[in-house]
Amino acid sequence: MQMKDQSVNSLNARERLARNLRSLRARHGLSQEALADLVDLHRTYVGSVERSERNVSLDNVERLARALNVDISDLLSPTLRIDPKVCL
Amino acid sequence: MQMKDQSVNSLNARERLARNLRSLRARHGLSQEALADLVDLHRTYVGSVERSERNVSLDNVERLARALNVDISDLLSPTLRIDPKVCL
Repeated sequence: MQMKDQSVNSLNARERLARNLRSLRARHGLSQEALADLVDLHRTYVGSVERSERNVSLDNVERLARALNVDISDLLSPTLRIDPKVCL
Repeated sequence: MQMKDQSVNSLNARERLARNLRSLRARHGLSQEALADLVDLHRTYVGSVERSERNVSLDNVERLARALNVDISDLLSPTLRIDPKVCL
């Protein structure tokens, strides 16, 4: 099976989600618990996502993206581009 | 909770995945069964993803993206941009 552009896309999907989630949560000034409350999930769930331990469902990725005001495709992007508005 | 750009992002994540998956599979000339074989899933699973019925796990979205030679963020994009190379 052919893989594209391994040099920039070497993180797998769980690792990308973990990195982008952690970064966006911090920029919003949210604790894991505060974000968990926003999306009605448990703090330990958010923690496990940020450690790439969890095979998150698409519905939950979408809930996390909405809570952080980014598109779901951004949350899984290899190069997270953060709109300045998001950080305010 | 603030939502961004509803006009172009009105499809939810399941619907986007369904639309993009169906489109890319067709461009590769693959049947649901052939794609299912590539990713070691059942044909009925692929069918249910394409009908937005299934809350797919991130690992399986990634397997589908790799089989179709696109990035996982492209597979969830509101505006699928298909690299011409992908279509050959």
